[in-house]
Amino acid sequence: MHRYRSHTCAALRKANVDETVRLSGWVHRVRDHGGVLFLDLRDHYGITQVVADPDSPAFKDAEKVRGEWVIRIDGRVKARTQETVNAKMPTGEIEIYATEIEVLSASKELPLPVFGEPDYPEDVRLKYRFLDLRRETLHKNIMTRTRVIAAMRRRMNEIGFTEFQTPILTASSPEGARDFLVPSRLHQGEFYALPQAPQIYKQLLMVSGFDRYFQIAPCFRDEDPRADRFYGEFYQLDLEMSFVEQDEILGTMEPVLRGIFEEFAEGKPVTPSFRRIPYDESIRTYGSDKPDLRNPIEMQDVSEHFRGSGFKVFANILAGSDKAEVWAIPAKTGGSRAFCDRMNSWAQGEGQPGLGYIFWREEGSKIEGAGPIAKNIGEERTEAIRQQLGLEPGDACFFAAGDPKKFYKFAGAARDRAGEELNLIDRERFELCWIVDFPFYEWNEDEKKIDFAHNPFSMPQGGMEALEGSDPLGIKAYQYDLVCNGFEIVSGGLRNHKPDLMVKAFEMVGLSKSDVEERFGGLYRAFQYGAPPHGGMAAGVDRIVMLVCGARNLREIALFPMNQQAQDLLMGAPAPAENKQLVDLGLRVIPKKKDD
Amino acid sequence: MHRYRSHTCAALRKANVDETVRLSGWVHRVRDHGGVLFLDLRDHYGITQVVADPDSPAFKDAEKVRGEWVIRIDGRVKARTQETVNAKMPTGEIEIYATEIEVLSASKELPLPVFGEPDYPEDVRLKYRFLDLRRETLHKNIMTRTRVIAAMRRRMNEIGFTEFQTPILTASSPEGARDFLVPSRLHQGEFYALPQAPQIYKQLLMVSGFDRYFQIAPCFRDEDPRADRFYGEFYQLDLEMSFVEQDEILGTMEPVLRGIFEEFAEGKPVTPSFRRIPYDESIRTYGSDKPDLRNPIEMQDVSEHFRGSGFKVFANILAGSDKAEVWAIPAKTGGSRAFCDRMNSWAQGEGQPGLGYIFWREEGSKIEGAGPIAKNIGEERTEAIRQQLGLEPGDACFFAAGDPKKFYKFAGAARDRAGEELNLIDRERFELCWIVDFPFYEWNEDEKKIDFAHNPFSMPQGGMEALEGSDPLGIKAYQYDLVCNGFEIVSGGLRNHKPDLMVKAFEMVGLSKSDVEERFGGLYRAFQYGAPPHGGMAAGVDRIVMLVCGARNLREIALFPMNQQAQDLLMGAPAPAENKQLVDLGLRVIPKKKDD
Repeated sequence: MHRYRSHTCAALRKANVDETVRLSGWVHRVRDHGGVLFLDLRDHYGITQVVADPDSPAFKDAEKVRGEWVIRIDGRVKARTQETVNAKMPTGEIEIYATEIEVLSASKELPLPVFGEPDYPEDVRLKYRFLDLRRETLHKNIMTRTRVIAAMRRRMNEIGFTEFQTPILTASSPEGARDFLVPSRLHQGEFYALPQAPQIYKQLLMVSGFDRYFQIAPCFRDEDPRADRFYGEFYQLDLEMSFVEQDEILGTMEPVLRGIFEEFAEGKPVTPSFRRIPYDESIRTYGSDKPDLRNPIEMQDVSEHFRGSGFKVFANILAGSDKAEVWAIPAKTGGSRAFCDRMNSWAQGEGQPGLGYIFWREEGSKIEGAGPIAKNIGEERTEAIRQQLGLEPGDACFFAAGDPKKFYKFAGAARDRAGEELNLIDRERFELCWIVDFPFYEWNEDEKKIDFAHNPFSMPQGGMEALEGSDPLGIKAYQYDLVCNGFEIVSGGLRNHKPDLMVKAFEMVGLSKSDVEERFGGLYRAFQYGAPPHGGMAAGVDRIVMLVCGARNLREIALFPMNQQAQDLLMGAPAPAENKQLVDLGLRVIPKKKDD
Repeated sequence: MHRYRSHTCAALRKANVDETVRLSGWVHRVRDHGGVLFLDLRDHYGITQVVADPDSPAFKDAEKVRGEWVIRIDGRVKARTQETVNAKMPTGEIEIYATEIEVLSASKELPLPVFGEPDYPEDVRLKYRFLDLRRETLHKNIMTRTRVIAAMRRRMNEIGFTEFQTPILTASSPEGARDFLVPSRLHQGEFYALPQAPQIYKQLLMVSGFDRYFQIAPCFRDEDPRADRFYGEFYQLDLEMSFVEQDEILGTMEPVLRGIFEEFAEGKPVTPSFRRIPYDESIRTYGSDKPDLRNPIEMQDVSEHFRGSGFKVFANILAGSDKAEVWAIPAKTGGSRAFCDRMNSWAQGEGQPGLGYIFWREEGSKIEGAGPIAKNIGEERTEAIRQQLGLEPGDACFFAAGDPKKFYKFAGAARDRAGEELNLIDRERFELCWIVDFPFYEWNEDEKKIDFAHNPFSMPQGGMEALEGSDPLGIKAYQYDLVCNGFEIVSGGLRNHKPDLMVKAFEMVGLSKSDVEERFGGLYRAFQYGAPPHGGMAAGVDRIVMLVCGARNLREIALFPMNQQAQDLLMGAPAPAENKQLVDLGLRVIPKKKDD
């Protein structure tokens, strides 16, 4: 017989009754039922109930063992009685009468219980992560994570993509976030950097003639820790294709990404065909470029109803600027003064002067708009607004007015809030959409100059002609996101593969040709030697896993994450270096000033 | 029609004749045959011949294009004439008459030719790696590499292993090689380290209850560059299993590893069942723990024939020490004085006083041993040696004498040399074997103490009893390598999962319990809370790819390797940091002293 096990702890069924078996695993819990000991034995695969009665030669050892000890047991499979069958456990029809127990490894008093998964402080969970990872939910989430990643690989391979590993020790590339630096020992005073993303390498792969690249890629950014962001490293499903246009990239990846959600949705509906919503439309309709489409609220421009109306606040705003608009946030079932007032208070809490509203009620056979705004603009305009928005008695509508550039985020937040408060959001589904036609540039108010709105390597729509045109802020990029339930899970673009166009695009943000050569020398050089049109995207593995697991914290889907202070409490990182290491690297640590 | 291509450059066959098609790719080369232009158009998938005759509307554009320009061509598929069919090309039955050519991206004068792959200096190849990677052999090797890795994943998944990603920003762990450090910005003066291997994490995964782990794992070591070692990062197929003994680990992985070789051997034979050779036997038989079994030479102890013989050098060595032995290196077909003298000169070049030998020839009907040693020891002993080794006239034998610990490496080198010189090695095969029972400890002559011979985390055979015994240097470890054609491609072991045994094992090399806690705190702590028996191995991905590709340099199987000076010439790494970065990290670079 195998030294440790004839079966896993998930394997035994009624058909195995009377077999002599051997199992190994962790003691999940011990119960004493009138002198008979019941041990739940757990391994990676499942749990099996082991019985030691006082007559068993294993009883003495069974009395010794405690939670999380690792033991081997030999015994005989018996059918459970009708009353004791546990239909929830795959092995619930049987139990094992132990004849021998061997302690393979004892455990000290547990700093963190595994059984029952009671809440525990995060620092204990991270320091004893090896115990935390034995807990059912986290163990299951981690396995889901590995399966999601395996499914990504499988699906990418199936459609002709090849996985390449790009370098991790590479050059600093000032793309946005802060780099991690790695001091060079052989070139003292110089540094490698960990890649923020394999962006440049994947483009180089296209220039090298590899047609369809993907990678489950580790990415590194030294950004201050946040609850919704891993400190240090995170993973992307990174991909790139040559000889493609935007349509083909989206068309190629949509089935892969939808397939992933369908595979792990456990029956929850997944959008069958992803809408492609232009950025501007998304902002106007949802107040966000990451709209949660589970929320049915769609905003509308209702400026016309307020122009010259008796509601002077809005009428004056509209009269005061060409750019001003009034947007309506219709809230089905929100038609009570109590709810509208609650929203108003919330808005004030957000630093807004308030949130204007109308709500409709039935007065006899008449539909009546209520609230101060309705009073001020009068019945006819109130009714026209209701008609435009398709609202009924019992519904409400909130308003935001001014320059949409300035209020859209707040309007989007109000839409979210109303959807949540009114329970309009069906949480048991995955709603996905592409956001396309992102602006290429944006205005940097602080520095009074234009900046890249997103990825500087994207292709501007309209090419050189657009860049030489009069309205750089009107240029759209071949750049797109995929959004699921309000989270951006993918970002990508068609790349600007033309050296002259690249130089021009950077010129607009104040970088010269020599800046481009200095900062992106490898890529810029590559583009001079025959670069194919190409594009791609990167999907956030961690975020997708969180969504399919229904997890609310990144630490619930990661093996050995750092804490919020960027520390690995299990391994003890970071830590001071030995002096010899610093000497080897030619570095000196500057003592922190007291007032820092 | 697709904007760039209706087919890839490998797709068209005779069946497509008369179709109108569109291809995109790189101009592999241009030939002018009496005014008609022939363009070989290349993409990732293959090459297609394009013809532009002077009547074609595409002719003008065809005249413009140069090697490595990226173009799109439209045209009509025509069958080649019998004489011009190229059977070596999958598309060799057809060619395309171009009707339109669009230049998608021009190329400057090439610093490195792609067509024909002429030899080029490495610094140019690395600086223009994107061109180098377009070359046929390197492009093919890289694709083999990706397929080998995909096959590893597939095979590991098939036998129930799950891939996990372990952290890359982690703690320094003084396991052997030099760590790369990553300065922490949030904890100034402290450092993360890049993992030399996921050794500790994979063991923690076993303690966390994940039963079968694997990973295509990036590993990082700051060792001085060498031709046969990547600087910086390399990849392992890393794996670990719980509740196993050594036999099961080898038995589980042998089919996977053999399968990989068989899959990529292109018909070359692969050892059907891997021998398990104990370390001691391997040293005695092959003079190495990395024996090339394609070399049929097996050494033998022939001490008895020299004890008290007329060859005083050996007789005295044997008489002078209990440890002394004489080993024979039989060399079939090496029986000429010229060859034996060549071997002797080679040995002197290696710093040896010489290499004693006997060779046999037929003198009439008699077999006669020739050379100085034969003369000295006489006919009878010479014949006894021949009999023991099974040698024939025309064969030779070389001898090494002394303490085998001191001469075995030289003897092994002589075995290699003889095998190569005599062409005894069948290069067209993959010979694999396990080396098992490595010594647990070794003697450190410099520090006059014992050290771990290999992995300090391995389980000593015999457990605590052995550690408490009188001969620590005689203890074997449950530790094994897999060797292919003389290269170590896998290394692994059963782990020491018992905290008391771990402390004892480290005590023997002079480390206290508190040293263990300090250096391996995470793992040591984990072992106190229920650790399963476990073990595993790590296979060198790069080495395996080199072997199946028949490549002689690691740079021939890697995408973007650094050069021998640890520099990435394409991306420009390492490079000085910006002052702001150093300030953020609280570091100062110490200027190098002039005399360094």
